[in-house]
Amino acid sequence: MMGTQRLQFSELKNLSVEQVRQAIRAGAYQGHTAGLGKGYLQVNIVILPVEYALAFARFCTDNRKACPLISISAVGDPIMSTLGATIDIRTDVPAYHIYEKGQLIETRQAISELWSNEWVVFALGCSFTFEHALQENGISLWHIDQDLTVPMFKTNRPTIAAEPFAGNMVVSMRMIPKAQLPTVIDICQRYPMAHGKPIHWGDPEALGISDIHQPDWGDAVPVSNDRMPVFWACGVTPQVALMQAKLPRCITHKPGHMLITDIAEDADILQ
Amino acid sequence: MMGTQRLQFSELKNLSVEQVRQAIRAGAYQGHTAGLGKGYLQVNIVILPVEYALAFARFCTDNRKACPLISISAVGDPIMSTLGATIDIRTDVPAYHIYEKGQLIETRQAISELWSNEWVVFALGCSFTFEHALQENGISLWHIDQDLTVPMFKTNRPTIAAEPFAGNMVVSMRMIPKAQLPTVIDICQRYPMAHGKPIHWGDPEALGISDIHQPDWGDAVPVSNDRMPVFWACGVTPQVALMQAKLPRCITHKPGHMLITDIAEDADILQ
Repeated sequence: MMGTQRLQFSELKNLSVEQVRQAIRAGAYQGHTAGLGKGYLQVNIVILPVEYALAFARFCTDNRKACPLISISAVGDPIMSTLGATIDIRTDVPAYHIYEKGQLIETRQAISELWSNEWVVFALGCSFTFEHALQENGISLWHIDQDLTVPMFKTNRPTIAAEPFAGNMVVSMRMIPKAQLPTVIDICQRYPMAHGKPIHWGDPEALGISDIHQPDWGDAVPVSNDRMPVFWACGVTPQVALMQAKLPRCITHKPGHMLITDIAEDADILQ
Repeated sequence: MMGTQRLQFSELKNLSVEQVRQAIRAGAYQGHTAGLGKGYLQVNIVILPVEYALAFARFCTDNRKACPLISISAVGDPIMSTLGATIDIRTDVPAYHIYEKGQLIETRQAISELWSNEWVVFALGCSFTFEHALQENGISLWHIDQDLTVPMFKTNRPTIAAEPFAGNMVVSMRMIPKAQLPTVIDICQRYPMAHGKPIHWGDPEALGISDIHQPDWGDAVPVSNDRMPVFWACGVTPQVALMQAKLPRCITHKPGHMLITDIAEDADILQ
């Protein structure tokens, strides 16, 4: 049904996870995945040479709020069967970023031609999971309602380094009505594999953020007195660490363009 | 204060985490750690050659309910500073099991003389954490009240293999008053790094357990109609996988004789 004909987001919205993945695999959709395959876990993807894999596993483990480790591939194996029955990591992400020595050199729709038997794939949890849970509990999120990207900030909090991986933590920020804060914390705590409980709420300066209206990534959101800025450890943290590590080559998903898995967001294996 | 004079459990019970670890480090205490250093995370320890470390990280990640990965050491580095300010993995566990080709060949009080620059240490979460939380919420646990070991069973559920690591899952079982089951599930769900939500409750046969009175490890507990058997993924699972993998050499803590960390059981980094 898909061929290589381009599909729009609205055409994929009501398709099953497997159908969405087929469209992506066929090259028919290269857009963002927020709101697609609802109810299923989406993951950040990091692909790097095996010689750095153990250090990266260590980095993720010691910084699990930013880098919740869902799965690691076998060396050189692009089939991630623990994430889904048919997942092929070379084709099933809508868009890939190719880095060389810490520089983004190319964006691709598939990486089959680049694949190496020396590569290891890491799948890390993503904030879409708790955002869905918040919305289902009646907590609206401005950036989603406006179809914008959540604002993200560099902080003054260093990650725990695992050489060559290091750097400060990146956080995402959402403005939450003060009365809803306890509910938000309670809901997010149920999703430890999706950044879990916020790491901070209130004064942005405590994280070294000097201007809440000037995010380092994503779009600024309106700030008002009845709402409080709430900060979560963010999946951009490992991307910053990767760029600083200046590996000869590594690959990530394009931010927002995630791998959609067959794992339910509330699956027992995540709890 | 400690020297190498032997100390009894009762003498350590009210000491600080650092004092208990000093006693262990000095060889003055080689007993179990249940009830020591209350409120602080205790961890299972696995030490193996670096060539198997990435596969073991993969095994833990794909079987996270049984093997919740708290920390991985740098290659050859016995100092686990992310677990505690002074932790030296060669001396700070009360008793170590040394395995060769899957066989337990020796129990030791320290492994300083055996240490190799080719080793990697894995720290995995442990059920003591949720047992403390259950007790603090008024849920009594028979095996603790009787100073016995929780009953553990082999199941018919295969783990997800990461060659050479494989084998069936091991579960621990606690008899819970039926009315308390929802509370127990709710509490345990808050501790994903300590086996989290139980994997099953009710009929033991569903897990391939034919006789609930005959545990494969630990002590049998009384079974009554007003209580339900509740089963958690168990930290013995990786030990079984290690024995089956028949590595030339590997080391674990002696079951029940855990590493006590400086991390609070309810620390934000675990949530």
